[in-house]
Amino acid sequence: MKPSLTHERSPAGPPPLHGGDRSPLHALAEIPEAGWLDLSTGVNPWPYPLVEATAESWRRLPEAAAETVFAEAARRYYGLDGAAALAAAPGSQALIQWLPRLLPPRRVAVLGFTYKEHARAWAAAGHEVAETEDGRLPEAAEIAVLVNPNNPDGARRTPAELAALAGRLRRRGGLLVVDEAFADLDPEGSLAGLDDLRGLVVLRSFGKFFGLAGLRLGCAFGDPGPIGRLAEALGPWALPGPTLEIAARAFADRAWIAATRRRLAEASGRLDALLAAAGLEPLGGTDLFRLADHARAPALYERLCRAGILVRRFPERPRWLRVGLPPDAAAERRLLAALGA
Amino acid sequence: MKPSLTHERSPAGPPPLHGGDRSPLHALAEIPEAGWLDLSTGVNPWPYPLVEATAESWRRLPEAAAETVFAEAARRYYGLDGAAALAAAPGSQALIQWLPRLLPPRRVAVLGFTYKEHARAWAAAGHEVAETEDGRLPEAAEIAVLVNPNNPDGARRTPAELAALAGRLRRRGGLLVVDEAFADLDPEGSLAGLDDLRGLVVLRSFGKFFGLAGLRLGCAFGDPGPIGRLAEALGPWALPGPTLEIAARAFADRAWIAATRRRLAEASGRLDALLAAAGLEPLGGTDLFRLADHARAPALYERLCRAGILVRRFPERPRWLRVGLPPDAAAERRLLAALGA
Repeated sequence: MKPSLTHERSPAGPPPLHGGDRSPLHALAEIPEAGWLDLSTGVNPWPYPLVEATAESWRRLPEAAAETVFAEAARRYYGLDGAAALAAAPGSQALIQWLPRLLPPRRVAVLGFTYKEHARAWAAAGHEVAETEDGRLPEAAEIAVLVNPNNPDGARRTPAELAALAGRLRRRGGLLVVDEAFADLDPEGSLAGLDDLRGLVVLRSFGKFFGLAGLRLGCAFGDPGPIGRLAEALGPWALPGPTLEIAARAFADRAWIAATRRRLAEASGRLDALLAAAGLEPLGGTDLFRLADHARAPALYERLCRAGILVRRFPERPRWLRVGLPPDAAAERRLLAALGA
Repeated sequence: MKPSLTHERSPAGPPPLHGGDRSPLHALAEIPEAGWLDLSTGVNPWPYPLVEATAESWRRLPEAAAETVFAEAARRYYGLDGAAALAAAPGSQALIQWLPRLLPPRRVAVLGFTYKEHARAWAAAGHEVAETEDGRLPEAAEIAVLVNPNNPDGARRTPAELAALAGRLRRRGGLLVVDEAFADLDPEGSLAGLDDLRGLVVLRSFGKFFGLAGLRLGCAFGDPGPIGRLAEALGPWALPGPTLEIAARAFADRAWIAATRRRLAEASGRLDALLAAAGLEPLGGTDLFRLADHARAPALYERLCRAGILVRRFPERPRWLRVGLPPDAAAERRLLAALGA
């Protein structure tokens, strides 16, 4: 008997915990929504200025011409040469959802303690998934997935190291997937500059660095095989017209990009000093968040909640807290006070 | 030997022709972009007023609370009871892309001469696809797909007829997919009111009736099995924050919706008179477009292009032209003059 088309697929487990959703906390502490200080995400608190999209971009189906302008701006920003394959989706999460469904079942290794949606998406698509917390490539793995720099600890691998890893996988008939969600801060670390992108799929996130996570935009570049399948699966008109316009403008704004990199570096330096003053031990991070260790992290987390401050905790790493950038000096003082320093 | 992960998938043929993209025509006639009168789509020319989304909706990842507000507004607008399954995607095209990939290979029939992306998407996902232009269900089909009211001829099937068809397919272990992209004009014809949605997947488009095709929003409701798989495949944060806010407001705006239905009915009545005056024979349509037959349709199409007016033609039906609503009296006069009436 054939499997039923209307039978519920067995779920891939409960959804993982993420930063950025304040709803469950509204029950925990009686602080009005405007009063929450949300430091639970790695989203830039100083967003790209909201440029108005044209009324036409809202009204009409996105035209090929607008998609081309967007793609050229994205290529220039990422530093891709004209021949590299590029696909764009409504959020890098959409790429994480699609990619595993477009490949036949394989042995997949997610390297390192990292963003949980990767393992979840590959498992939900029927692949055999191992999470290897030491970050080494298992001998049996045909596809490897890693985040670089890593979220939440900021661990970095050089392009040369990753090119070698991609080569090993390619000789096995496999693929290396590198999620560069936080690579905008230090573009030298991106794989975009490699001469040979065969056997590689690189994912980029627009919303984190540009501070517009609600816009939902992600790009993938690399091997023309899987990137072509992604583009084909996403189909026509995958991105809203306003998204194409806003992102094309942001990608091309070199002055804003350079100033923002400096600003985020300064702010994360101040955050380092603040966490150190409160007795938290630094474990790493990127210029959009810091990861810290503390023996009484669960109690600290709760104390912060009661003060209306949301940070990111990790059920599997109870001593860890990930802290995003306070948006201004008042928020820095508020965080310092709540940490009891 | 296993199939290569990086080998290009064989393409599903060239992309079908669609309305709404003026780019190729800019070469054909030297008319500035602003001068084109685009009647090639079925998008309402009087869009829902552009309400400003909050800055927060652009900046933050969409929160569960905003998704709930949106889903409740969508349910009320479609007339679904609380138990019906609902999934939302960035464009109904995204649902057309996903659904075939979530079901095991089956014999699929696309009923009637209709929107080409359905057959294309099912074939690209490895299903065996037959297009049956007489609209009858082949004995062997396990999944049937149809558009109701149909695009481009406006042919309608009653909910009772479709419920019976869904029942036949369900007894075969199959599924009926009904694309209700133009059902907003006459909600009585929608399957939303059926008591039993088992074996049914209904697709709805936001952009056509609300005149915001660039926003990219589509909904699916029906059998909890496939709808649940769609929601799982789309994953978290599938819709931008501004989309959730704008659509929730539009869905709830009963006065605008009622006035728009009247306005579109009046405008399509005027379009009927205009096409008749020009000697085109009516073949049907919806209140967002009309389909007409003319012995010299290709010559008419070209004459309209030279006058800067874009309508929709059909390579497989050279006598047909589909004409959208002229946005004002000047556009009506311009169309009439170009038709040589």
